[in-house]
Amino acid sequence: MKPILPKAVVALSEILSTLPGIGPKSANRLTFYLLNQPDETISQFAEAFAKLRQDLVKCGRCHIVAEQDPCPICSSADRAQAELAVVEESLDVLALEKAGFLGRYHVLGGQISPINSVSPEDLTIAHLLRRLKQEPIKEVILATDPSLEGEATAIYIDEQITVGKKEGELPKNLSVTRLARGLPVGGDLEYADELTLSRALEGRRSYHQAK
Amino acid sequence: MKPILPKAVVALSEILSTLPGIGPKSANRLTFYLLNQPDETISQFAEAFAKLRQDLVKCGRCHIVAEQDPCPICSSADRAQAELAVVEESLDVLALEKAGFLGRYHVLGGQISPINSVSPEDLTIAHLLRRLKQEPIKEVILATDPSLEGEATAIYIDEQITVGKKEGELPKNLSVTRLARGLPVGGDLEYADELTLSRALEGRRSYHQAK
Repeated sequence: MKPILPKAVVALSEILSTLPGIGPKSANRLTFYLLNQPDETISQFAEAFAKLRQDLVKCGRCHIVAEQDPCPICSSADRAQAELAVVEESLDVLALEKAGFLGRYHVLGGQISPINSVSPEDLTIAHLLRRLKQEPIKEVILATDPSLEGEATAIYIDEQITVGKKEGELPKNLSVTRLARGLPVGGDLEYADELTLSRALEGRRSYHQAK
Repeated sequence: MKPILPKAVVALSEILSTLPGIGPKSANRLTFYLLNQPDETISQFAEAFAKLRQDLVKCGRCHIVAEQDPCPICSSADRAQAELAVVEESLDVLALEKAGFLGRYHVLGGQISPINSVSPEDLTIAHLLRRLKQEPIKEVILATDPSLEGEATAIYIDEQITVGKKEGELPKNLSVTRLARGLPVGGDLEYADELTLSRALEGRRSYHQAK
């Protein structure tokens, strides 16, 4: 027998089910929800996907996904140059912005994870260390996820900075801090509510003290 | 200050958050997940949405969404003509197909719901009654949702059929059945709600028959 549902319906449902957190049944449900929407809405979806990659660059300084290089944050004179928040993904920048952080960022591009074969070389850590030499940064805020891999990434970066200080390549008074443990352990930074995140910013402590 | 994220990223995130069950944070997460996928994958998404409405019709007989009219089920000689399952949406057809139903379908296009201003005239009930006169149907299986609106819709259709029989427009021996209500297979009795359990009690069958 021929398949029951039209190919276009099956195709959309199948591709939606590849998204994280969306199983085959949810994908079917979303597809039929969309089938009942006006043509205009469907076109808007198609267009939003088609345009996603157009004119997108990564900021050459902080590696956030942006329309221009440098990005609006790096090119803004209003942002504190002394404070640098080191995050895993561009999405984490959004969360810290909502929590009221006014410094600048460095996006690592992920977290060190041997299981997923992500080593320090796959992240922008070498570039981070160069920035610490070149820019007037006084404090590095390690804002990686409060997860196992996020911690490991923070520990690795702290070690690299300690080595840099010992070898005289980085200023001795450069401080390294970590977001306070107001964050639920095992969670994801981007899912934290704004208040928790802003408390975590306020309560940040010297990296060695916090351990 | 300029917005932090590129317009294309915000646009996709915003449109994804209009989908049922997807909030702004999930939408952000999906968007950044997609940003990390190959260009080809993104194009497949764009294409799947763009093609969704192309060449789609509703079957003139059962109202399922399809590529041809009549649909593969209505045009198949292998399907039992005597059994007609009345469902709310095309998606419900998929569920019954998986459950092994071998008859034919009638898709109502929704459920009677005064709150959402859906009245019987907005559904394909009049057409269903015409089909019952014209086609060799022996049993109508009311397979609407086991919800308040689904029940109301089933009751309404049953009443219309009863009237039709009294007026001699429908055959007296046309039977009307409803999907059994009871405990979901694989579920836990202690977690069943009172209503489900009381329906399961009412609908209990001889042990040897039930197997």
